[in-house]
Amino acid sequence: MDLSPSYLVGHPPLRITDAAPIPDADTGYYPHARMRLLPASGAWREGDDPGDRRFVHLGTQVLESGDSLDVTVAYETWGELNEDRSNAILLCHALTGDSHVRSEDGTEGWWPGIVGPGRAIDTDRYFVVVPNVLGGCQGTTGPASRHPDGKPWARRFPRLTVRDQVHTEKALMDHLGVPYWHLVAGASAGGHRVMEWPATYPDHVEQFAVLVSAPETTAEQIAYAHQQILAIKLDPAWRGGDYYDAPAGNGPHAGLGLARAIAHTTYRCPTELDTRFDRTPQEGEDPMAGGRFSVQSYLDYHGYKLAARFDANSYLTLTETMLTHSIGRGRGGVDRVLSEMTARALVVAVDTDRLFHPADQARLAEALPGCEGLVTIHSDHGHDGFLVENDQVTDLLSGFLQGESPRAVS
Amino acid sequence: MDLSPSYLVGHPPLRITDAAPIPDADTGYYPHARMRLLPASGAWREGDDPGDRRFVHLGTQVLESGDSLDVTVAYETWGELNEDRSNAILLCHALTGDSHVRSEDGTEGWWPGIVGPGRAIDTDRYFVVVPNVLGGCQGTTGPASRHPDGKPWARRFPRLTVRDQVHTEKALMDHLGVPYWHLVAGASAGGHRVMEWPATYPDHVEQFAVLVSAPETTAEQIAYAHQQILAIKLDPAWRGGDYYDAPAGNGPHAGLGLARAIAHTTYRCPTELDTRFDRTPQEGEDPMAGGRFSVQSYLDYHGYKLAARFDANSYLTLTETMLTHSIGRGRGGVDRVLSEMTARALVVAVDTDRLFHPADQARLAEALPGCEGLVTIHSDHGHDGFLVENDQVTDLLSGFLQGESPRAVS
Repeated sequence: MDLSPSYLVGHPPLRITDAAPIPDADTGYYPHARMRLLPASGAWREGDDPGDRRFVHLGTQVLESGDSLDVTVAYETWGELNEDRSNAILLCHALTGDSHVRSEDGTEGWWPGIVGPGRAIDTDRYFVVVPNVLGGCQGTTGPASRHPDGKPWARRFPRLTVRDQVHTEKALMDHLGVPYWHLVAGASAGGHRVMEWPATYPDHVEQFAVLVSAPETTAEQIAYAHQQILAIKLDPAWRGGDYYDAPAGNGPHAGLGLARAIAHTTYRCPTELDTRFDRTPQEGEDPMAGGRFSVQSYLDYHGYKLAARFDANSYLTLTETMLTHSIGRGRGGVDRVLSEMTARALVVAVDTDRLFHPADQARLAEALPGCEGLVTIHSDHGHDGFLVENDQVTDLLSGFLQGESPRAVS
Repeated sequence: MDLSPSYLVGHPPLRITDAAPIPDADTGYYPHARMRLLPASGAWREGDDPGDRRFVHLGTQVLESGDSLDVTVAYETWGELNEDRSNAILLCHALTGDSHVRSEDGTEGWWPGIVGPGRAIDTDRYFVVVPNVLGGCQGTTGPASRHPDGKPWARRFPRLTVRDQVHTEKALMDHLGVPYWHLVAGASAGGHRVMEWPATYPDHVEQFAVLVSAPETTAEQIAYAHQQILAIKLDPAWRGGDYYDAPAGNGPHAGLGLARAIAHTTYRCPTELDTRFDRTPQEGEDPMAGGRFSVQSYLDYHGYKLAARFDANSYLTLTETMLTHSIGRGRGGVDRVLSEMTARALVVAVDTDRLFHPADQARLAEALPGCEGLVTIHSDHGHDGFLVENDQVTDLLSGFLQGESPRAVS
């Protein structure tokens, strides 16, 4: 069963049969032999191939919690900063993304169809900067990084906020000699940072584009995040966060995988699940005899894929930043902050998004003085529509960068 | 913070502060000291107070899997069977319900406002039968019951289907001398059995009322069920299902609690969560320092409450019956079965239900020859509206039993 339809452009093909099951209903939770080959953490570590990453040591950062942290950032850039330094764009990746928004040839990355020569975010024209987020696991300082004692931070890693992450990005901006961002853009958890940027550094953001995101987290989103945190901590292989020295296959993959399954269900929408999977049994399995339906295998496979490339403690740290996310905290509330946010703004919803509800985004667009109104992407794929609907996202972003009214390109 | 508003009629008061937290972020998952007082399983066991339960040993039942099972059913009844035996009503409880639909004085039970003297299901007029479901844990044979070897069945318990559960209910019907049900009614997972009854025993069902349920499970519902199964199996205290001899506090409470948190989020709706909880911190906790928001405490508390009264293996067994639920299996498909289901039918949706979507229920109502059209309950509480909106449910059921057109009472 090959589930690599054309709308998954930008994702590696999803071949569910790769996740060949080993029925193991009674003794183990995760019917996936390959899980046992995974290292305990999917974090990038010193000594691993850096790929296209560059690194900058930014020094000590005082966090919102009062703790200090020695910060290194991994980032990638495309294009060149122009002479008057007016063409820099910051892209903020989502929860489990990283700096690799596109490869040189555009075949890989999380937004390759959107970023590149001649693309909506035209790297022939703009200097595009994509850092791995603070607390992440792909080169920027996070729980898998070394504590001064030489061992991983693990759960000693300080509590972070979205503001801390934006302060780090500001330090990177200064390092790169960029005086302000022509555009700050991002989706989902990346949109949290997009919203914090003009709230924290209004003089350094000319325009911002926030896709399927919000100025603060809702109770429902907190509920989903809570479940995911519980899932990771429930895994005995999490070991209170100290799993980095565990042998292959003994990391908290099952807990991280369950967290992903919970999250992934919120990223898609019911009609898609019913249309793609309906009640089809997974190939070679019989649900009447304890086998899985294909939608179960699909969720298991997404869990596996994430466990192969991510770190469970990073997932906790970043999910915790989502819990506390509110641009209004200590600033008189969200409404007040939004009313003072005058930069030109693009707010984008996906009509089938059940995690960031379009109605909430309509209110956000309404509240932003610099926004001409909500723009809605039509998608059968829910929240993940921002990754799937390349043509619509291209039209929206290129139109916005060319100064068109957002409504006109909807 | 007392969260026991009037719309929680029929539920014990929700006093979130009862779930006093013990911050335990690094070493444990469940910040709830009282969890450590809970027995390993919340199942009713021989020797426990039977309350109003009666028991009948129905003997050996051959299951859809081909396995045989020696079955005892716990049930409660209200009212008397009339002379021509025409007034019997079967109520099918939902996933974690039981036979206790109401207490003598109507102060307890899962549907006390609906069942009783002078109520919609009038026990002065009808003989009301409510069995605990096969595979449950409140007196009917289930995984916590004794295997012939004297130890609990645990995960040796055979795989069940909704049809097996209905066959058990038919055997109970025969035992009680009831020739047919004047009405079979139930909601949610109870509605699965309601749908199976006229499909399996069309001559024994005069009318049926199915609330917020479906003739087969959707891919999305399978996804949610899958997450809940994974959560329980991930808990090291689940021990492959063999936890019945564990000391108090060492049962799979955390896994069952997480399963409940996942499920409970699907039972409510986003506007309710945002209205009730918004971003309020839990009393005495500071989310900026690792404490919880009140919605997190709310989910923890529901997990705790379920762990106190339920059995994790039963939860797995019953959730697995939901995965395979389809009245069309082996019968030429759901559409065909529905088209032949001529009994008078009431189909009820809740407008904010995100687990059983109203659109799916509109299709069900349309497909049933004996249904005059979907009736929709208006509720701010999502799927659980069937437990909350007593006035509307009363009107619907009493109208239906009096022969009124369902549209008229909507």
